[in-house]
Amino acid sequence: MVNIGIIGMGRIGKVHLQSITYHVKNACVKAVADPFMNEETKEFVRGMDVGKIYGDYKEILADPEIDAVLVCSSTDTHAAVSIEAIQAGKHVFCEKPVDHALDKIQKVADALAAHPQCKFQVGFNRRFDHNFAAVRRAYDQGKIGEAHVLKITSRDPEPPNPAYIKVSGGMFLDMTIHDFDMACFLTDSDVEEVYVQSAVLVDPAIGEQGDVDTAIITMKMANGALAVIDNSRRAVYGYDQRAELFGSKGMAATSNDTLSSVVISDHQGVTGEKPLFFFLERYMESFSEEMRQFVDACQSGGEVPVGIHAGMQAVKIGLAAKKSVEEHRPVKISELD
Amino acid sequence: MVNIGIIGMGRIGKVHLQSITYHVKNACVKAVADPFMNEETKEFVRGMDVGKIYGDYKEILADPEIDAVLVCSSTDTHAAVSIEAIQAGKHVFCEKPVDHALDKIQKVADALAAHPQCKFQVGFNRRFDHNFAAVRRAYDQGKIGEAHVLKITSRDPEPPNPAYIKVSGGMFLDMTIHDFDMACFLTDSDVEEVYVQSAVLVDPAIGEQGDVDTAIITMKMANGALAVIDNSRRAVYGYDQRAELFGSKGMAATSNDTLSSVVISDHQGVTGEKPLFFFLERYMESFSEEMRQFVDACQSGGEVPVGIHAGMQAVKIGLAAKKSVEEHRPVKISELD
Amino acid sequence: MVNIGIIGMGRIGKVHLQSITYHVKNACVKAVADPFMNEETKEFVRGMDVGKIYGDYKEILADPEIDAVLVCSSTDTHAAVSIEAIQAGKHVFCEKPVDHALDKIQKVADALAAHPQCKFQVGFNRRFDHNFAAVRRAYDQGKIGEAHVLKITSRDPEPPNPAYIKVSGGMFLDMTIHDFDMACFLTDSDVEEVYVQSAVLVDPAIGEQGDVDTAIITMKMANGALAVIDNSRRAVYGYDQRAELFGSKGMAATSNDTLSSVVISDHQGVTGEKPLFFFLERYMESFSEEMRQFVDACQSGGEVPVGIHAGMQAVKIGLAAKKSVEEHRPVKISELD
Amino acid sequence: MVNIGIIGMGRIGKVHLQSITYHVKNACVKAVADPFMNEETKEFVRGMDVGKIYGDYKEILADPEIDAVLVCSSTDTHAAVSIEAIQAGKHVFCEKPVDHALDKIQKVADALAAHPQCKFQVGFNRRFDHNFAAVRRAYDQGKIGEAHVLKITSRDPEPPNPAYIKVSGGMFLDMTIHDFDMACFLTDSDVEEVYVQSAVLVDPAIGEQGDVDTAIITMKMANGALAVIDNSRRAVYGYDQRAELFGSKGMAATSNDTLSSVVISDHQGVTGEKPLFFFLERYMESFSEEMRQFVDACQSGGEVPVGIHAGMQAVKIGLAAKKSVEEHRPVKISELD
Repeated sequence: MVNIGIIGMGRIGKVHLQSITYHVKNACVKAVADPFMNEETKEFVRGMDVGKIYGDYKEILADPEIDAVLVCSSTDTHAAVSIEAIQAGKHVFCEKPVDHALDKIQKVADALAAHPQCKFQVGFNRRFDHNFAAVRRAYDQGKIGEAHVLKITSRDPEPPNPAYIKVSGGMFLDMTIHDFDMACFLTDSDVEEVYVQSAVLVDPAIGEQGDVDTAIITMKMANGALAVIDNSRRAVYGYDQRAELFGSKGMAATSNDTLSSVVISDHQGVTGEKPLFFFLERYMESFSEEMRQFVDACQSGGEVPVGIHAGMQAVKIGLAAKKSVEEHRPVKISELD
Repeated sequence: MVNIGIIGMGRIGKVHLQSITYHVKNACVKAVADPFMNEETKEFVRGMDVGKIYGDYKEILADPEIDAVLVCSSTDTHAAVSIEAIQAGKHVFCEKPVDHALDKIQKVADALAAHPQCKFQVGFNRRFDHNFAAVRRAYDQGKIGEAHVLKITSRDPEPPNPAYIKVSGGMFLDMTIHDFDMACFLTDSDVEEVYVQSAVLVDPAIGEQGDVDTAIITMKMANGALAVIDNSRRAVYGYDQRAELFGSKGMAATSNDTLSSVVISDHQGVTGEKPLFFFLERYMESFSEEMRQFVDACQSGGEVPVGIHAGMQAVKIGLAAKKSVEEHRPVKISELD
Repeated sequence: MVNIGIIGMGRIGKVHLQSITYHVKNACVKAVADPFMNEETKEFVRGMDVGKIYGDYKEILADPEIDAVLVCSSTDTHAAVSIEAIQAGKHVFCEKPVDHALDKIQKVADALAAHPQCKFQVGFNRRFDHNFAAVRRAYDQGKIGEAHVLKITSRDPEPPNPAYIKVSGGMFLDMTIHDFDMACFLTDSDVEEVYVQSAVLVDPAIGEQGDVDTAIITMKMANGALAVIDNSRRAVYGYDQRAELFGSKGMAATSNDTLSSVVISDHQGVTGEKPLFFFLERYMESFSEEMRQFVDACQSGGEVPVGIHAGMQAVKIGLAAKKSVEEHRPVKISELD
Repeated sequence: MVNIGIIGMGRIGKVHLQSITYHVKNACVKAVADPFMNEETKEFVRGMDVGKIYGDYKEILADPEIDAVLVCSSTDTHAAVSIEAIQAGKHVFCEKPVDHALDKIQKVADALAAHPQCKFQVGFNRRFDHNFAAVRRAYDQGKIGEAHVLKITSRDPEPPNPAYIKVSGGMFLDMTIHDFDMACFLTDSDVEEVYVQSAVLVDPAIGEQGDVDTAIITMKMANGALAVIDNSRRAVYGYDQRAELFGSKGMAATSNDTLSSVVISDHQGVTGEKPLFFFLERYMESFSEEMRQFVDACQSGGEVPVGIHAGMQAVKIGLAAKKSVEEHRPVKISELD
């Protein structure tokens, strides 16, 4: 049994609490910490049989019963809290991104190097999605041959509040970061170079924040494959999450998930359902699966499926993407070192 | 080169004329005969470079240049004209049904027995459709194994004029007859027994003519397979023409053809096109293919793909279906002998 | 909070225990009873925090803490245990079929009539499946218009042990019973008449047990619609569970669920995944949903979604289907009264 | 009736001859010219009832009976022959590309400016494909709203002979040129800037010719939309030709065409057919449609659907793409002026 403490009881903290309680064997949430929990949240936590409800996360780090912590606090605290937790001898699951600054992520990596027994996993949950995992599995099984072209479509159903844009680090570090990680995951390779063609087509308020809302991002992967991501902050038909990996022996492609397979044929046409609305609907099962694999690694001492290297890569690509927009040219990842 | 005369210049006669002119090698329509051609039709015929335009079909039968005739006149004349043509030494392509009466079809069979060199093909064009032919090919290639269950969906976009119902012999001899033949074709077997559950759900005027407009027809095939056809005289979304053959090793299923593959995703859903509207749109290519194979048989002396046995079977099944409705019980085909 | 006791800890009892524990709010399993539990089962039960583990189900009925019982014991005990539970003042969820004999089901109905406050639900879980429920919803919303033709495809991935055939009451009462209920559910109507065309094509051993393994079942619904079910005990590609409801305004059709949406294009073709393997994979979520709605009815005093009438109907149709096979004729449901 | 002369009886010349003969009303091929016709080709031409078979194309230009010519000779002669034909008072249909050099295309444009009555159409046949035309139609009808992101997938089933690479002008001017035109067509806009990420992944021999075989090409359209094309010279599953136009109100997407809709479900999965093999199979109908519209323009005096501007644009984009590869940076189309 892995005893878990969750730091941060916002939306994603609650998702993990629920996943572990209902869907993960051999794990148990013993404590949560958040200085800003309202009564409703506390009741939710108690309903999950969590015994210890703290304001200060340091109480979790000091608790000898706790084996592993989930860092679900605000992004700017991820790195510091993770380092403290590593030093306190806990395994750590850190939500993405580890940080927006590479030097801070490097400090986490340094802490991990000093504590080799520590399991550290980054919250790129989409790797555990049934569709994307099946593409990677097909690739690993040799069904696609050598990877030539990866295409990722990633469109949100609606843009975030403009106020959130600044805090989030912009589209590339907030939204596309998942797609950058997916590109690395599906091709099993790092990225070498990035070029972005972007625009503000969805909402001028986003442009006023200095961000973009529509982009086509081309990447050259270290293994020679080419990859392209297309992003939009708004798809009126819902959350559009697809990938297509093309190679020397074939192609694996996914389509969107829907609430049901029902198709209505009538005088207007032949109509199926829209994609599942947003990430909580679409990726709920993947949150459980990433937690299962984290718990497995903690128990077995085996490798975590998404380590600090992946956490660093995705942010590097995001920063390179921003630079590409600013300087309107292809940017090598190595320029960021 | 096979020189062809077409008897009857109604809708289907024109289809064949156009098919042969544009899409069939080694064949040429030299003459047409129809006592009721208007000027427009004559112009259409001349536009296809047909030299001889007759009122009386006997002129075609007497013409030594003509190798083969297409019997496209009204149903009640099919058998008699076919027999005359056989006796005149012509190959014959006869539109379906050969007749509504089994004894008349038998007389055609007798004439053929007396003229073994004559090629006689019945116009079950759907056997030559790309989708249905691919199901049969899969079956012949052993991909389905032994046939267990065949399902045919056949729904017209809109019912015929009630006045036509009587003349046509009713739904089973007019519309379902194609599906009966398809059942025999796809399972490569005759039918042994038929049971019909039917209703008047589309248009009471059809019921007033003593006919039905909706039916589920279950058949036991001679090779042991079970088959079911569902018919409706009106599908608001268009002409619904599908088949599914299930067996010991797998299933082959077809879907409807559309004008384009375009799918629109918007706030309402994910919408593709309706099926092609009706038989002229859906089966146009199959009319060319049946003609090509008829011409091949005439030239090569090989077997025609749809002979008098198939023409007889389909009518027998249709008559058994009518009897099943009248007597509300399963009817063996052998009861009709 | 509804306190629940589960009678019978076989496969389906465990499914319900797990569903309620993890996926149903406002309900709690307080006790289970089964005389034949091994240590592994007991550990599973304890792992779900069930306090009371009995051998004799009467202890559950006598327990004043228990509000509702799930009758998951062997089929031949369903009716008697249900009646006892009703008389003990419990709400009852009874697995399907209530019994194979109509008179025994009638006795349950009589007991319910005498205890009108009792909520009694029958375990036709497929009504709660996301796909089938969406078809019914489309129908209720008027998208299909009047129901004309319902088609249900229901094929198991592999036949049961021949030894099971006899006990199960045969294919119609064991397997097709779900499809009979589905026909009533999707058309919102009872059945008036049944005709079966059946065969032994999958396994001769099934025929030796006096049963069939392949069937096409045609039904006339009380509301005038026609319905057809095709069954096979073995589909090599997995569990095939589809429905198509066609009516005056359109058609709603479902397709099979798969583990992922991945499609591989290679030199062999364009290949998607097989359907989910069998009912535990395919219908797991529906077991939770039926339990949620049962618990809701117990709490709110509202109507259960599947009552004793549905439980009776499905068995009547099954018996009529058997009679149709024996007497080779259409059989009216009213003949069974 | 438009009387047509075809200059060049290679593969594409034959396609047009056959299309016009069988599928285009109001047009007639009266003459063909090619200095290198073998006997088989001549027989094919005679079989289409073409009266005049010349070696020298100038005889066609001198023939007063000829209204319009199709320039189907080798690419390096397109511009010069077109200009001669324009000056001879003929309407001109010119195969793509008009030339590889912009100044030569400009000379054609100049000749057209001097002969305003001349209809001049460029052979971008894919605009007339049923799928792509349906995407554009949806856009024109406002179903997609403002265009935000266009994605084109274009992969050949197999690479050309390496010897052909040099002559062809390289992948961008030979293969992608169709996709460049498609991008302009589907967004109804010119291109402003191009960036290419490319590689040699299919065949090193192509790299030795100084060309690439795999590419992702990003474009900024003049109307603000972003577009991306992914190309490969070899898709083992066949000719992959898809487009997806995403905008403020929705998305229109096409899939590949197949020989039949048959899907086989067996122990391996659920398998449909591969895409139609190559451009002659996939786009045959579009060749007829482009010819119909050219003939219509000649007859009616209306506008041709694909004029010299489109012919110029596509080559400009191709040259910009080459420059982008050489200089590894985004290239503005205006740099080529």
